Amino acid sequence: MQIGPCKNGRKHHSLPLARPTMQPGIIIPPCDPTADDRLYHICITAISLVVMLILAVLARRTKVGDRQKGLPGLLSPVNFLDHTQHKGLAVAVFGVLLCKLWGLIISPNPLPFTTDTENKREDWVILGVLYYPALYYPLLACGTLHNKVGYVLGSLLSWTHFGVLVWQKIDCPKTPLIHKHYSLFSSLPQIACLAFLSFQYPLLLFKGLKGTEKNNATEDLSSSYYKDYVKKMLKKKPTKISTSSTETPKLPQRIIDAIKSYIYTPEEAFRFPPKLAISGVVSFITLYQVGLLLISAVVPTLQTARLGVDEDIANLLAGFKIMLSPDKHEVVRIVVYYMWCVEVCYISAMTLSALVNLAMLMRSMVLHRSNLKGLYRGDIYNVYNCQRSIRASRPALVCWMGYTSFTAAHIFIGMIIQTMVFFLCLLVAVFLIIIPLLHRQNLILFQILPFWLMILLAVLIQHITGRFCFIKKVAGTRDLNNRGNLFLLTYLLFPVNVLIGVLLAVWRMIITALFNIVHMGRMDISLLNRNVEAFDPAYRCYAHYLKIEVSQSHPVMKAFCGMLLQSMGQESNAAQRSRDAEEGIQLVQQEKKQLKVSSAKRARRHWQLLYTLVNNPSLVGTRKHFQRQTAESFLNGSLKRSTKEGSKKEAATKEAEAAASN
Amino acid sequence: MQIGPCKNGRKHHSLPLARPTMQPGIIIPPCDPTADDRLYHICITAISLVVMLILAVLARRTKVGDRQKGLPGLLSPVNFLDHTQHKGLAVAVFGVLLCKLWGLIISPNPLPFTTDTENKREDWVILGVLYYPALYYPLLACGTLHNKVGYVLGSLLSWTHFGVLVWQKIDCPKTPLIHKHYSLFSSLPQIACLAFLSFQYPLLLFKGLKGTEKNNATEDLSSSYYKDYVKKMLKKKPTKISTSSTETPKLPQRIIDAIKSYIYTPEEAFRFPPKLAISGVVSFITLYQVGLLLISAVVPTLQTARLGVDEDIANLLAGFKIMLSPDKHEVVRIVVYYMWCVEVCYISAMTLSALVNLAMLMRSMVLHRSNLKGLYRGDIYNVYNCQRSIRASRPALVCWMGYTSFTAAHIFIGMIIQTMVFFLCLLVAVFLIIIPLLHRQNLILFQILPFWLMILLAVLIQHITGRFCFIKKVAGTRDLNNRGNLFLLTYLLFPVNVLIGVLLAVWRMIITALFNIVHMGRMDISLLNRNVEAFDPAYRCYAHYLKIEVSQSHPVMKAFCGMLLQSMGQESNAAQRSRDAEEGIQLVQQEKKQLKVSSAKRARRHWQLLYTLVNNPSLVGTRKHFQRQTAESFLNGSLKRSTKEGSKKEAATKEAEAAASN
Repeated sequence: MQIGPCKNGRKHHSLPLARPTMQPGIIIPPCDPTADDRLYHICITAISLVVMLILAVLARRTKVGDRQKGLPGLLSPVNFLDHTQHKGLAVAVFGVLLCKLWGLIISPNPLPFTTDTENKREDWVILGVLYYPALYYPLLACGTLHNKVGYVLGSLLSWTHFGVLVWQKIDCPKTPLIHKHYSLFSSLPQIACLAFLSFQYPLLLFKGLKGTEKNNATEDLSSSYYKDYVKKMLKKKPTKISTSSTETPKLPQRIIDAIKSYIYTPEEAFRFPPKLAISGVVSFITLYQVGLLLISAVVPTLQTARLGVDEDIANLLAGFKIMLSPDKHEVVRIVVYYMWCVEVCYISAMTLSALVNLAMLMRSMVLHRSNLKGLYRGDIYNVYNCQRSIRASRPALVCWMGYTSFTAAHIFIGMIIQTMVFFLCLLVAVFLIIIPLLHRQNLILFQILPFWLMILLAVLIQHITGRFCFIKKVAGTRDLNNRGNLFLLTYLLFPVNVLIGVLLAVWRMIITALFNIVHMGRMDISLLNRNVEAFDPAYRCYAHYLKIEVSQSHPVMKAFCGMLLQSMGQESNAAQRSRDAEEGIQLVQQEKKQLKVSSAKRARRHWQLLYTLVNNPSLVGTRKHFQRQTAESFLNGSLKRSTKEGSKKEAATKEAEAAASN
Repeated sequence: MQIGPCKNGRKHHSLPLARPTMQPGIIIPPCDPTADDRLYHICITAISLVVMLILAVLARRTKVGDRQKGLPGLLSPVNFLDHTQHKGLAVAVFGVLLCKLWGLIISPNPLPFTTDTENKREDWVILGVLYYPALYYPLLACGTLHNKVGYVLGSLLSWTHFGVLVWQKIDCPKTPLIHKHYSLFSSLPQIACLAFLSFQYPLLLFKGLKGTEKNNATEDLSSSYYKDYVKKMLKKKPTKISTSSTETPKLPQRIIDAIKSYIYTPEEAFRFPPKLAISGVVSFITLYQVGLLLISAVVPTLQTARLGVDEDIANLLAGFKIMLSPDKHEVVRIVVYYMWCVEVCYISAMTLSALVNLAMLMRSMVLHRSNLKGLYRGDIYNVYNCQRSIRASRPALVCWMGYTSFTAAHIFIGMIIQTMVFFLCLLVAVFLIIIPLLHRQNLILFQILPFWLMILLAVLIQHITGRFCFIKKVAGTRDLNNRGNLFLLTYLLFPVNVLIGVLLAVWRMIITALFNIVHMGRMDISLLNRNVEAFDPAYRCYAHYLKIEVSQSHPVMKAFCGMLLQSMGQESNAAQRSRDAEEGIQLVQQEKKQLKVSSAKRARRHWQLLYTLVNNPSLVGTRKHFQRQTAESFLNGSLKRSTKEGSKKEAATKEAEAAASN
């Protein structure tokens, strides 16, 4: 028995995933690797527990000393709101976890602790869903303390995981599940992620020994990234927009622009938030796994069936009263040819779907970046198409927590549906259009040629008369001409236009369905009309996700906090220096009471604050005084306006810059 | 043989439309009405020709006299850009034409001139598509001259059409086509439209004799409608928006508002353009015809099949190895019960689809009104979601010409698809959920209860912790709390969230498909994402249609032209008074050269112009001086801005009003 969504997915495209899929002739014996999975899991769980205990002891020791993290830091090994952290470890662990989840759902015995899992498979799946994150947790936690011992433990642990997995795969490259090599290929991403970890921990240890890693890994706020971002932002852009906005670009230019917008090119002074980076890798692994499953579950079966066609098929078809040819050899040839066509269609559909999803992944990354930058700038209206307050809330938080997982799930469903639809479309195209064309029979579309001619003629008449008879240009403006004849033509062509309208409606249906199916795997755009965008659950989740990301890890805010901490550090005790962004933010609110600064410095800070806020209106909402009617109402007013219009922001920036230069 | 789209439509829902659909037991003899269709068509064509000749002679005579229309007027009997015209005649003729087109496509012999039409059916359909508009043309033309003779001819012609049709239907109420009463019910809208015409022409004649109809029917520009519109527009609205915009309305209020937005209530000082009125009626007739076809083609067949089930069915099912029950009577009972379920599903799906389309029709009317009013006001951005120039162009004109036809075609395709999809959904719901529930078998969804519990628990945990642990309120703003635990929970719930994401993706697919299918028949909204709206051919057509409508029949422009003509009439010869809107517009441009007005009057007019343009920015594009850099650049600048922002318009209006009061 299997759990819901997966069963659902299988039922959709009716893939026989169970053992009957195996080629009947070749029987692959169940293979027991030397490193028994059950024993391995019991050992590794125990080792992980020991590692965690050692780390906890270490964390308590370090807390007594200089650092502030300690045990709480160990409990949150990955900071999802930290742009400058080394994301590799988190990405790799999430990749491993996803592969394990995939295996959990596909394989007949989800956990290796029992042998009789057929009856309670579902309960074991639930257990596995909770067990695997805990199992791989130490791999993440070892890097948290930035401690040499931690790195050594991490290296050992990742080597163990990696070694055992590779050993198992070398021992048993063929398994009876789905296809003989499926299991091997399916574990490739997991091997890659573990290899990355096995390489990364020794590297970190090496850096730690040399003492070069501390600055860029531990101290988020003192990183130069945020300052670079602010510097980039304050630079004046070359104003070539004014020339290009008046004249619309030509068609080739527009096509090139459209293609460019699908190619992601890294930009300096912009880094993705860790959650988006993880989502990207997780999506890519999902794409690989789904593609592999779709290929290995169907194509070998089709090939076996094709090779197994013999003259019995003619008798079978005759039983259904289908006579392809009087000659039995000819029937076999035709059936084999048709089955080959089906196979080609299926592989093409799968490939097309994978390529489409890759393109969509790239496009998503481009869009993520422009959305994030837009929201940092305060262009809320452009991103959301309505006014929203960018602040943390319960639904936003829930969506933020699930975002990475949801992207993977959407790619999964999207690819399955795309493959199905493309496969059906290709089948229809091949068997109803291409093959009849080749054999010159059943040319339905060409039999009603006069009808198509009439439609074409009516469309042409309307366009030509519209261009030459009914529109006149007077003094640069266009106006209607010959209104009487226009009305007459409109009346006379009414019935023909109804027929044209039917074609148009069919085309609308096709293009809408195709668009939605192609973009099914993308969460960053809504598949619904602009007025009901929020009813699309995926887009709603993405919009909420962006809220948390922007309100909590705005680069300018972080640069500001970093600056404040730095200046505090110069004035007060260096030991009080705080390392975490959140503590920095709290300090911003406390510092006024704690420190007495000179009036010149205060004035400078006020000016810095004002300037920062003008350039980053989304920060206004997080200020303490936001709801009071203070002297800053002027500022808020101008900010709200600039938020609404978007286009006016540049003007405000320029004003502020002009004021700054005085 | 049949023509393309219709064949297509039939193939879709596999309705056997040809004669085999008839109940096998009852044979309806072909019925020849006393008024033979062939003879009738030859006579009525000749009569129509004579009527047109008389009208032409009349038109030449009247042209010599006072009026300016004459023959050109006769050639454009319906002015689609005239809000105040009596629209009834045009609407009724379009209704008749649509019913004829429908009959043309459905019936086996499209035109009554030949008997052997089976071979060249398609050519006859093409001929019919051109013939029927010409046949019903005199019915429209008779009302154009506003002449008593014209009304008498119109009355006679419409009585003839109406009388013969009713006579034929009384003679032959039953036909062998599709269903015995199909032909009768199908011609009901046509009879209604002809009855309306038969009543309307005598009424017009009566009014003409009394001399009361001239003012409201002939002179569009001197109608009080445009002045009323301007007066309404200039009235200050009660400013209750400011209070309601700060606090979001509560849920029951929002639901009531949503329901209200689907109910069309007529407004004073707003009339629909004739094309929209015609589109509305044409859509309604299409809805009726499609519904009738869907019911009468399928339901009687199903009923006959249900009544014909006997014990042979048990043997037939046994042939396919389906054993419903060992008892043959029991098998018959079960099969009849299942067939009854299918029938109920089908009728429910059809009814649902018709109701949905009715609701959509109402909603469309509400939206048309708000879009038109928005564009009159200059809120281009709100309507189109981008900046566009509202002026006549070739594609806009082509879309405008086809708009009415396209609405009908979209309703047709929309209803067929809706019925199919709803029918399938209901079948799945009944046979996979309701019947198993009633018989307590195959309860798949309940067998994996632990899985559902896990999903529910994970969602609950995230919402509850999100609400109570991870968000804190400080000084009116919300911020994150306990970041470490938040990150930990995010990591641990990653695999569960993937499973939740799969459910979410399936839900997304369902809701997107449902939304698009429900809104398939509506052209006034795009079914695509907001960035690619224009790729939806139907929405693109609607957007272009609105351009022509607004740029050519802006009520304020018409009121202005009317005022100018009136003042000219007071100063110059009354005989020069011009009656047509287009001539009025041309006169606006010429009047400056022709007339020397006093400087006080000129100043007043300049002020009126400025004020009008401030309130109706969309008119600026139609001005002659638009592209010159005159002293009005200030005005244009402010207008462009107000067009962009929409919300600022009120401010501009108030400024203008303040200036006016000084």
